[in-house]
Amino acid sequence: MARIVQKFGGTSVADLDRIRNVAARVKAEVDAGNEVAVVVSAMAGTTNQLVDWATNVGSIHDAREYDAIVATGEQVTVGLLAIALQNLGVDARSWLGWQVPVHTDDVHGAARIERIDADAISARLAAGQVAVIAGFQGIGPDGRITTLGRGGSDTSAVAMAAALKADRCDIYTDVDGVYTTDPRIAPKAQKLSQITFEEMLEMASSGAKVLQTRSVAMAMRHNVNLQVLSSFTHAEGTFVVSEDSVVEQETISGIAYSPDEAKLTIVGLADKPGVAAIVFGALANHHVNVDMIVQSASTKTKKTDISFSVGRADMDKAVKIINEIKDQLAFDVVDAAPNVAKISVVGTAMRTQPGVAKTMFETLAAKGVNLHVISTSEIKISVLIDAEYTELAVRSLHTAFGLDSDQ
Amino acid sequence: MARIVQKFGGTSVADLDRIRNVAARVKAEVDAGNEVAVVVSAMAGTTNQLVDWATNVGSIHDAREYDAIVATGEQVTVGLLAIALQNLGVDARSWLGWQVPVHTDDVHGAARIERIDADAISARLAAGQVAVIAGFQGIGPDGRITTLGRGGSDTSAVAMAAALKADRCDIYTDVDGVYTTDPRIAPKAQKLSQITFEEMLEMASSGAKVLQTRSVAMAMRHNVNLQVLSSFTHAEGTFVVSEDSVVEQETISGIAYSPDEAKLTIVGLADKPGVAAIVFGALANHHVNVDMIVQSASTKTKKTDISFSVGRADMDKAVKIINEIKDQLAFDVVDAAPNVAKISVVGTAMRTQPGVAKTMFETLAAKGVNLHVISTSEIKISVLIDAEYTELAVRSLHTAFGLDSDQ
Repeated sequence: MARIVQKFGGTSVADLDRIRNVAARVKAEVDAGNEVAVVVSAMAGTTNQLVDWATNVGSIHDAREYDAIVATGEQVTVGLLAIALQNLGVDARSWLGWQVPVHTDDVHGAARIERIDADAISARLAAGQVAVIAGFQGIGPDGRITTLGRGGSDTSAVAMAAALKADRCDIYTDVDGVYTTDPRIAPKAQKLSQITFEEMLEMASSGAKVLQTRSVAMAMRHNVNLQVLSSFTHAEGTFVVSEDSVVEQETISGIAYSPDEAKLTIVGLADKPGVAAIVFGALANHHVNVDMIVQSASTKTKKTDISFSVGRADMDKAVKIINEIKDQLAFDVVDAAPNVAKISVVGTAMRTQPGVAKTMFETLAAKGVNLHVISTSEIKISVLIDAEYTELAVRSLHTAFGLDSDQ
Repeated sequence: MARIVQKFGGTSVADLDRIRNVAARVKAEVDAGNEVAVVVSAMAGTTNQLVDWATNVGSIHDAREYDAIVATGEQVTVGLLAIALQNLGVDARSWLGWQVPVHTDDVHGAARIERIDADAISARLAAGQVAVIAGFQGIGPDGRITTLGRGGSDTSAVAMAAALKADRCDIYTDVDGVYTTDPRIAPKAQKLSQITFEEMLEMASSGAKVLQTRSVAMAMRHNVNLQVLSSFTHAEGTFVVSEDSVVEQETISGIAYSPDEAKLTIVGLADKPGVAAIVFGALANHHVNVDMIVQSASTKTKKTDISFSVGRADMDKAVKIINEIKDQLAFDVVDAAPNVAKISVVGTAMRTQPGVAKTMFETLAAKGVNLHVISTSEIKISVLIDAEYTELAVRSLHTAFGLDSDQ
């Protein structure tokens, strides 16, 4: 017997038929003798309608009211799934964020889970009842409904698994696992049977959308065994596990890419201490996330160039912010390149196996791909390239690192 | 300065434009220096969609899950209205049933309000904030969401007015008040400027749909000053008040009718003590509401007939129930007449003014209308007639009692 948290996203509960399908999935775990808590999202499309209403009823935005409105999406799904389970003879009840309760901070619309009092649910699980829990929502310190922001239901599921000391947290989605890269770009991509938390974290933050970065980080922190699998097939998924439970490791686990990047270059910046702090401080104050940064060698004129990448949606805003502090900085001009992509090779084993960077750069050079910015971590190398080379670069690297399914 | 509870039904908040219109109505009361609590229903159509989902996801019905699902309708409206008010510069926040809290019993789907802790809202009102309260919902003794059943939002508003010791409770709807009878049948019907609780109660239970019986009974019990008015015009509505605040009183306040009645007659029933108890006990056990009852004089054969009316939707069920207890009762046959209507004349003053029954019966006789069953209360006389005479009877009585607008 195991204690399992299952999480089903919006496409898995998009209509009554799919909700009944989810109920059958839950029942299978119950029939196998397991204790089951299920975390669900809103029916696909519902949240968009609610957000649309909340943002169009007036121009003033009250995040507390926004949360009360959008949280109804998950409230409907938990009720429907509980009924569907009862129809299969499974004892089940719904739990809203405030009923669990899932305590969060007061940052409405993007709240962080602070504490889950899982005792009540734990007791029900032990008594054989399935808990159907609304994802994405909690209760703030003032007793009002909060929501966790985008991808919040994954985070809810992982947090619940940690609080319930679950043996496993199964994230059901519309793909059947984590792949070595995006199969739409590289048909020879292979499903990974397992991946470490650190690798998954790098993959997620480098564009692989199968799991939210935030939920992976939480799983790593609490050592929650994650599985990513499909709600539409019965194939085994990908296990996301801690590094020490991985017996044998490939050099590279996967190639991730993020096509929606932009590169900014501040040209002719006075090369004196503190300028970087001014630039990135100003961007951070305006909530612009900066990813890769490179500073060119100073010239004899005591001037330097700083290049960095931001999400493309933030590009114009970033240019404006930099120009607003031109007086403080003294520079010539800000160049903005909207069409760049980030390509990353990810693998825990690169720590101990040199030559990954060499293989990566040689492979890209052989295809004539120019590298704008390079950044590395212990288990990842990322490069910024012209976006038009994205597919070519991903496929070439996938082959070069021996990840193709026929290799 | 007064403390006012306003209630807006589903058609008044059917879309974002109407919600903004409601916000303007609320602002007008705030600008007049009043403290305002607003109770709202779900957007028209929303509840039907939610009920549809909850009843079609499976055949098993869990009223607790049903309540969690359908309560989301009001949750969306309160959030949207709070935002709309803020956009007009009015300080406002939403309150869900469990946040107020509105304590109910545990009869999910048809819960009764047991107690409202209005202190938190009262304090906010005193501080100048508008409270936007979800109607129709509360929290049960087990901490789960309850709903009050059909027309529950009127009841929520009246209960809230009582708890807040409000000076007035304004029920906004799609008609502009209570009429002497249905203007669709009798074009000469007049809007009443006031009506007593008792009369309103009889009107409501006799088919006038403007207010739910249950909310009127509660208003009477707590002496809440009710006003019924339109959210689409600025005409003054009808005040529902206690009898002692009415200075001068017409004999008859109105003519109500209920077209969806059925008459059952148990023919040749053994005339011995206890048979009525058996008949109506069996019907009550199966939740069939019986309205008017008449028993014919016993014949020499020691047999009698009992006639009574039920809602037409319950007719077949009632026949079946009676036939199932035939052995206990001993009777010849149950006759069912599906096409009958109840016509009622209502007026507090009939207590002291004799001749109302005479006028009623003579008026109907002159038109050739046959009376099947007659029942009377202190302030009401009801008759059961063939349904095809409904409009004729209503118009004739309206004229006979001097209610026509040109009289």
